[in-house]
Amino acid sequence: MSDRLLVVSSDCHAGLPPARYRDYLDPEFREAFDHALPLQIANTREAEKMFLVQEINEEWRRGWDYELSGAWDHDARNKVLDGDGIAGEVIFPDGITEMNAPPFGAGLGLPSGGVDPTLQWAGARAHNRWLAELCQMAPERRCGVALVLALYDVDEAVAEVRWAKKNGLRSIMIPVMWGSHPPYHHPRYEPLWQVCEELDMPIHFHSGPAESEQYFGTWPPDPQVGTLTGGMGIYVSEVAFFVSRPLTFLIWGGVFERHPSLKVAVTEGTAVWVPEFLELLDHRFAEHAGSAKLGDYRSHMSMKPSEYFARNIRVGSNIHAREIALRHEIGIGTMMWGSDYPHPEGSWPETRSRLQENFKGLPKDELAAILGENAADFYGFDREKLAPLVAEIGPRYDDFA
Amino acid sequence: MSDRLLVVSSDCHAGLPPARYRDYLDPEFREAFDHALPLQIANTREAEKMFLVQEINEEWRRGWDYELSGAWDHDARNKVLDGDGIAGEVIFPDGITEMNAPPFGAGLGLPSGGVDPTLQWAGARAHNRWLAELCQMAPERRCGVALVLALYDVDEAVAEVRWAKKNGLRSIMIPVMWGSHPPYHHPRYEPLWQVCEELDMPIHFHSGPAESEQYFGTWPPDPQVGTLTGGMGIYVSEVAFFVSRPLTFLIWGGVFERHPSLKVAVTEGTAVWVPEFLELLDHRFAEHAGSAKLGDYRSHMSMKPSEYFARNIRVGSNIHAREIALRHEIGIGTMMWGSDYPHPEGSWPETRSRLQENFKGLPKDELAAILGENAADFYGFDREKLAPLVAEIGPRYDDFA
Repeated sequence: MSDRLLVVSSDCHAGLPPARYRDYLDPEFREAFDHALPLQIANTREAEKMFLVQEINEEWRRGWDYELSGAWDHDARNKVLDGDGIAGEVIFPDGITEMNAPPFGAGLGLPSGGVDPTLQWAGARAHNRWLAELCQMAPERRCGVALVLALYDVDEAVAEVRWAKKNGLRSIMIPVMWGSHPPYHHPRYEPLWQVCEELDMPIHFHSGPAESEQYFGTWPPDPQVGTLTGGMGIYVSEVAFFVSRPLTFLIWGGVFERHPSLKVAVTEGTAVWVPEFLELLDHRFAEHAGSAKLGDYRSHMSMKPSEYFARNIRVGSNIHAREIALRHEIGIGTMMWGSDYPHPEGSWPETRSRLQENFKGLPKDELAAILGENAADFYGFDREKLAPLVAEIGPRYDDFA
Repeated sequence: MSDRLLVVSSDCHAGLPPARYRDYLDPEFREAFDHALPLQIANTREAEKMFLVQEINEEWRRGWDYELSGAWDHDARNKVLDGDGIAGEVIFPDGITEMNAPPFGAGLGLPSGGVDPTLQWAGARAHNRWLAELCQMAPERRCGVALVLALYDVDEAVAEVRWAKKNGLRSIMIPVMWGSHPPYHHPRYEPLWQVCEELDMPIHFHSGPAESEQYFGTWPPDPQVGTLTGGMGIYVSEVAFFVSRPLTFLIWGGVFERHPSLKVAVTEGTAVWVPEFLELLDHRFAEHAGSAKLGDYRSHMSMKPSEYFARNIRVGSNIHAREIALRHEIGIGTMMWGSDYPHPEGSWPETRSRLQENFKGLPKDELAAILGENAADFYGFDREKLAPLVAEIGPRYDDFA
């Protein structure tokens, strides 16, 4: 047995420089693309000015041109991951933060309003095609996440899941916020849960979306009011609620009762919310005086919410001290570490030292589970194929002693 | 010093039988009232059928006609409270569950959509007038909560706060959900925070509202779909998020920075969410690597979120075992017990035994704080005036040993 750890990052990002998505679009959308591209780039800059500190991002990127090109380049990407000691990765869209999003609103946020579904689907398919190519260049290392627009025509979503599976993408992501569409306990989504269970395609909710238009006020700002004070604080405080919110609907909706093998992951929304989330749902599930007047709302479920959670749900995040402290309440088997490369809030390029710092002194089996074994099981990474790479680049157990 | 405890219920309800609100309405709204009343009663029955188990409620009410008439009757109310050992109380609308709501959508839920603001104001004022009368009959025991429709014209809301203060009501409640109106960090609400601070009128958010139309589906149900499975489980899991949500907006919006004496209470939303809520906000407030790209979102605040919380915010709830276990993380000074009379999910008519059971073995100072002293400070109950009553009806310290 190797003294090195299999590390899988459950949260990485990749995307083409926007102009290069053109070749991956169905030809009938290329004219629209040519019109939309300058607008998309301008909007990105505007958003960066409004919500982010452009200078901090630019400073962070300086001198890392080659490493950041791993957002789309096979060789650069492998070199970066080798450097971080990461053997396998799960790949979401939007490479370099806010700069490599797929066209037509098919990016990480998967907005459910304000976009044309036909165009958004075209953008999602362009990204999926390119991502499939990227993954096929290193299939043992790369688990690609296909963009699936679950809120529109469900048959179309099901067909895309089948396409993704056939083309080597091994999971999907669907919108965190459903906007004016029915939430995820609605029976209209049954065929989607069915096909994901059948094909063993984990479904992701990736953090980012929240009710931002409420936090920051109108755009452009009302001249009498300006930008609302506190918007960003509210955003960072509510974003983890919204990314975990679909779980409440799936669990109570009986989705995991009907689909015992369905896999769902919540990514980059921290894991600190898990203990209280499970306490709350289990408490509400337990019969008690306060709920009598509400009648029977639990007999369609054969297990407690926390039991579905432990069986069907995983949480991918860049694990910090509080998650480590709470790991038994969260569930060792639930936690999957992620580096968030190439985003500035992640651990790259200091992953090795950050891991040693955060995970120091953890028992060997817990360390192995959280850093890679849980993700290997969940996404079906082939340990034998990865073994030579792990023997070369994996961090050593002793480094965490 | 008495060996008896001052008990204040931070969550009680009162309301007239619907038809009797007519006399308290401004005359110009009485015709509309006559038209709306049968509809309101029919809707109440329909809602009870859809969301509640009518039989359980009816069974619970059987044989308690006199005691339940305390929902509006001075003498019956005092007798019930004496029986429970409660000297002081905070009085919200909606007496007997779902049966004594003020007219025109001015009930506990204070809906922010689907109602006519002029009529809803008429209903709120009718309730406030009646409640002021009820409170004037026992001002030392009763802290009435005036209904204030904060989302419409803010000057009108401010005027109602002044009316309420002048007429002996000692606090207000405003809508939990703002619907399509601006959230509570918007500067338009400044005059309301200002007057509430000036007049020492605590502001309440009372549990109940949530995004129910999403949980239960359309009404009437789509024949192809029926009622959505899991709706009630989702409701009970999300309702505490929505009642505490305004705090996120008030804290980050700097409202407590600008109004250091403003008092806010969250009522009947349990208190178990408090520790994680404070951890999350303080974590987001602390500077850390993950937030650098988001820029400065905290320099308008001189204290941590948990410090504003401890100073300005109280939580009223029917405290159960988990709240007791978490009391130090919640904050002893934050917790205010409530009986929820006359609602079936509350502790009446078993308050004395329930209290003994839940609070057994608690240190004397913690017991006193949670059962009454915190609320006495927050709402300004006059301990001297209540002392003779406490000496007669208050539970004894020894009962909790």
